[in-house]
Amino acid sequence: MAQPGIGDKVKIKTRKASYEGILMPRSELSDKEHIVLKLDSGYNIGISKQDISKIEQVPESRKTRAPKVIVKAGKGLPKISVVSTGGTITSKVDYKTGGVSPFKTGEELLAGMPKLAEIVQINDIKQPFSLLSEDISHKDWSKIAKEVYSELKKDTEGVIVTHGTDTLHYTSAALSFMIEGLNKPIAVVGAQRSADRGSFDGLMNMLCATHYCLSDIAEVAIVMHAGSSDEYCIASQGTKVRKMHTSRRDAFRPINDEPIVKIWPDGNLVMTGTQYNERSSGNPKLLDKVEERVALIHSYPGARPEILEHYIDKKYKGIIIAGTGFGHVATQPLDKKESWLKAVTNTVDSGIFVGMTSQALYGTTDSMIYSAGRLLKNAGVTYLKDMLPETAYVKLAWALGNFKRSELEEKMLENISGEINERIQPGSFLY
Amino acid sequence: MAQPGIGDKVKIKTRKASYEGILMPRSELSDKEHIVLKLDSGYNIGISKQDISKIEQVPESRKTRAPKVIVKAGKGLPKISVVSTGGTITSKVDYKTGGVSPFKTGEELLAGMPKLAEIVQINDIKQPFSLLSEDISHKDWSKIAKEVYSELKKDTEGVIVTHGTDTLHYTSAALSFMIEGLNKPIAVVGAQRSADRGSFDGLMNMLCATHYCLSDIAEVAIVMHAGSSDEYCIASQGTKVRKMHTSRRDAFRPINDEPIVKIWPDGNLVMTGTQYNERSSGNPKLLDKVEERVALIHSYPGARPEILEHYIDKKYKGIIIAGTGFGHVATQPLDKKESWLKAVTNTVDSGIFVGMTSQALYGTTDSMIYSAGRLLKNAGVTYLKDMLPETAYVKLAWALGNFKRSELEEKMLENISGEINERIQPGSFLY
Repeated sequence: MAQPGIGDKVKIKTRKASYEGILMPRSELSDKEHIVLKLDSGYNIGISKQDISKIEQVPESRKTRAPKVIVKAGKGLPKISVVSTGGTITSKVDYKTGGVSPFKTGEELLAGMPKLAEIVQINDIKQPFSLLSEDISHKDWSKIAKEVYSELKKDTEGVIVTHGTDTLHYTSAALSFMIEGLNKPIAVVGAQRSADRGSFDGLMNMLCATHYCLSDIAEVAIVMHAGSSDEYCIASQGTKVRKMHTSRRDAFRPINDEPIVKIWPDGNLVMTGTQYNERSSGNPKLLDKVEERVALIHSYPGARPEILEHYIDKKYKGIIIAGTGFGHVATQPLDKKESWLKAVTNTVDSGIFVGMTSQALYGTTDSMIYSAGRLLKNAGVTYLKDMLPETAYVKLAWALGNFKRSELEEKMLENISGEINERIQPGSFLY
Repeated sequence: MAQPGIGDKVKIKTRKASYEGILMPRSELSDKEHIVLKLDSGYNIGISKQDISKIEQVPESRKTRAPKVIVKAGKGLPKISVVSTGGTITSKVDYKTGGVSPFKTGEELLAGMPKLAEIVQINDIKQPFSLLSEDISHKDWSKIAKEVYSELKKDTEGVIVTHGTDTLHYTSAALSFMIEGLNKPIAVVGAQRSADRGSFDGLMNMLCATHYCLSDIAEVAIVMHAGSSDEYCIASQGTKVRKMHTSRRDAFRPINDEPIVKIWPDGNLVMTGTQYNERSSGNPKLLDKVEERVALIHSYPGARPEILEHYIDKKYKGIIIAGTGFGHVATQPLDKKESWLKAVTNTVDSGIFVGMTSQALYGTTDSMIYSAGRLLKNAGVTYLKDMLPETAYVKLAWALGNFKRSELEEKMLENISGEINERIQPGSFLY
């Protein structure tokens, strides 16, 4: 038998253990000192060449299916689209430094997830850019929205957007606003653990996202693990979700909301009773302009209102405040020179839109309960109900880009994509 | 029978209902158009005088016990101290405007809570100021700490600090750091609903806080409702808790931590297994200095690093960043002119301490997993493990006030008052 090659099924013995799996291409997942094996579980492991005592090809091995083969193999299956932007879900590990860096092509990604090919055809893999999500900015939201919008017009059931998790929820909010009259499902998906780890969640998240794309739910949703096990995923409204843990696979939680649907990797969908728009034959509209001079600031004891002057000087157009409690900043002057109330009034008088949210995250803002709220509202602050600070920031950047100043307050208070819940279900607290 | 007076038990009939309770002093809870009745449940209701069809004194009525009477009546009972600072727990409703404003004296507060007098004597009611908590700032933390410290030296079992809820967790963190070698329990307590509402939580929270003060737990803890019912309270480490809901009574939740103890209003205490320092005969030390030129900033897509230059110009001494994910900001330049990495490097080079936390709140920061973290750490950013952004902000203001610049990093990384959990229990996520 010849020396085993890429795609061959092999058995490897080291001093500690023995492994059986498919030999992965070196350029994708390994360096010169390591080889990478895809186990039957779907997970990849890296093995130091030094540790290998024996390597032999397993008879009747099959080649790893390359992405182009997937599309051919899946003829007759429903088609979905993938927009790949970078992040852990599409990342490989540098076994030398231990660091994680993005895959360079969508092909590399799909080579690691042949299971998808059993359910769908991949209509297209678009890659507007490849960035870790902390580097993604306003203009990137527009690029993603353009690609998604273009895919929606094709013969496709839905679109998966792969994305780093740090700012996944900002992008899902942006897509929720940028595509008006959405007619198909859009799943925004990431991975909290990289592909070299046994706890890699990207494969199951991609499977669940694929099932979401085949559903009748025409909403932008983040589709990620529901719990610390691999049991099922939740799809949460893209404007109502937040990364609530640095490392857990179930970090993405709906806030003031319940998930739209629970999704099992085998394709079982359980609706939760949350309202959603159904798949339709309508023509969505792209509203992808965005105003970059928008800021999100948090209030805290001792915070100085001079920060507002900074944003006035820099010609900002909008500011979202994540206030304390129901949406407060200090309204007693800090000293003779500085007063938040005066600074907020100056900001509003400069034509800057000032919106109020709460850093408590759960629950709704209310300007009428305490004197601070009434004073701030009188100064021209718009209270944004239960909208998340992050979502309000994205929405304001979007609204300033696409509408007249005179329409702004109405747009910000209009429930455009599930970002406002007038009635918050008690069960949604710390879901 | 004479016209019923303040403290008399009365029966009142209106067109809609009839009520029985103790007539409360007008100056405390009512205006000229309303009277306030304390019901047997302990809750107060306001009744419009216009609506009253009949009012009669109930025989064998007893006078409302005024605070001075409480102290006398409770002779032989253990003594605790109360430091009152304002907020909803000590607030009355203006029945005309619907707004809420603080009580002016501790006496007014205790007149509404005679149940406390059955358990303890109130050693002293100190009121350094009366502010709604959104107006509380650095110097107020020092004032509270001074009062608490002075009470600890007296014949007292523990100290209750009453406080508005908006920034309750910032103050509890400040007290946790400002009193070194704490020897007695300190309960920081507030109310999410005002005294005019049936759902008023201040009475039960005060009862639980009183029981906490009689325990052997020498920690600063926030003592508030555990759930949406009136069943029991939780006492959570003052550095590990956050207001997680704008209005729910169980808004205060431990983050990356479980409560120290569950407390029932009848005095039952159930320990959760969390570590704590025990009551001791040691002499605590007051470290109440604070540096006001400290800022807390959040990173988000499109955030401009020029904000750091603002704080350099304003001669700030410390900055806490609530980064995304494991503790990231954008490390790819936004454009040719602006780069977070360059700005962070400039900030550190200016002698400003830069600490990193995560806006995900749950989980720990880590500089070693992604390239952004490694680059920021190399630039001189100190990763503050699982410390909450709010706690890190308070701790940095405190550490800059009380220690040399050269000791700063070590102090910030030292677990001084439970603010760092090296091992986070899985059950603490979304507790």
